[in-house]
Amino acid sequence: MNKEVILRLTKYRRLLYKLKNLGLEKVFSNNLSDPIGISSALVRKDFSLLDITGQKRGGYEIEDLIEKLDSILGRDKTKNVIIIGCGRIGSALLEYEGFKTENIKILAAFDRDPKIINSNANIPILNTSEIKSFAESNDIEVAIIAVPDIEAKEIFEELKKSGIRGFLNFAPIELRCSSECTGVDCPVKCVIHNVNIGLELEHIFYQLKFREEPHDE
Amino acid sequence: MNKEVILRLTKYRRLLYKLKNLGLEKVFSNNLSDPIGISSALVRKDFSLLDITGQKRGGYEIEDLIEKLDSILGRDKTKNVIIIGCGRIGSALLEYEGFKTENIKILAAFDRDPKIINSNANIPILNTSEIKSFAESNDIEVAIIAVPDIEAKEIFEELKKSGIRGFLNFAPIELRCSSECTGVDCPVKCVIHNVNIGLELEHIFYQLKFREEPHDE
Repeated sequence: MNKEVILRLTKYRRLLYKLKNLGLEKVFSNNLSDPIGISSALVRKDFSLLDITGQKRGGYEIEDLIEKLDSILGRDKTKNVIIIGCGRIGSALLEYEGFKTENIKILAAFDRDPKIINSNANIPILNTSEIKSFAESNDIEVAIIAVPDIEAKEIFEELKKSGIRGFLNFAPIELRCSSECTGVDCPVKCVIHNVNIGLELEHIFYQLKFREEPHDE
Repeated sequence: MNKEVILRLTKYRRLLYKLKNLGLEKVFSNNLSDPIGISSALVRKDFSLLDITGQKRGGYEIEDLIEKLDSILGRDKTKNVIIIGCGRIGSALLEYEGFKTENIKILAAFDRDPKIINSNANIPILNTSEIKSFAESNDIEVAIIAVPDIEAKEIFEELKKSGIRGFLNFAPIELRCSSECTGVDCPVKCVIHNVNIGLELEHIFYQLKFREEPHDE
């Protein structure tokens, strides 16, 4: 199953949970395709590949769809992550409401500033030196990096040594695990998502600019 | 010039500024391609399309490259944005260091909670009802949306009416300006980037899972 299919399945499931919470019991492929911005034919194609079939009067049972998607995507398991760096972004993520609905649990955060370390906090904030032992004993696979750009590369190397293979990076620097690693096809099978907020904004400005003044280079 | 080229140009420029700050005066295409994770041939191709040529002994003058990229990408102009929503994420972005180096300036933030409104703050926090007048009188084109998901769609409509056409959305819901709008090819020429932190993390978990257990669906 390729990356695009997986991403669509996660989007279907998010939407299905929201519709279920609103009291709906059935959906049609259009109900799913419109909010996601794809064709209804693609929804039906994805579902038929997964052996999900609609009813003869049309429509899919939401419960059935969720159950099937859960078994494929592994919903049942809580996804444990750690956060490295407790500055503004890291602290905001510590209290981010959106994680709850995703079954994502932040087990601990790490910082090297002794002043903000607090092992008794609701989510403990530990010293960066404890990353390896914590990650190993808690079987952590995924980390959120929210340190300044000059610290990101070093932390990244340390996390890899601690057995972490999935990275969501908010430091404004592009992380790759080696010169062979493209993030998609990586020799040590790591998965890196770089979220560069400044670059995202810059990109929006350029897209607006180039829409207005077409260049022919 | 397509989206991918523009994105690469912004990456070259970011890197060139960092190299310049380290005291370098010249770069080779490899210096730029390796950190970005592309081939050096692609760097040379991009530059030749922009009429940028290297020296006969190899290498490009960093100053020349920056000047050329600035004129193409419009570096000189400060990019003014507003933030809607001053919860955890919005507040973190208000103090995000990464914007300074990008020439991005947050002119104001908006919230509907009277308790956190503060028009005398360093970056004023104003009432949501003032968005339209502020955006129009300050010629704002781009907004960051950091409100809860149930408020996002309404705020989005209000922003469009205020003349905003570029959106960086952190609310965990996918915004599109109409059913015809794909974000890329939009009838009212808006540009929307959706950053869904929960979905990013979920996606990392699935990519790790599907690497270990190949499915043949």
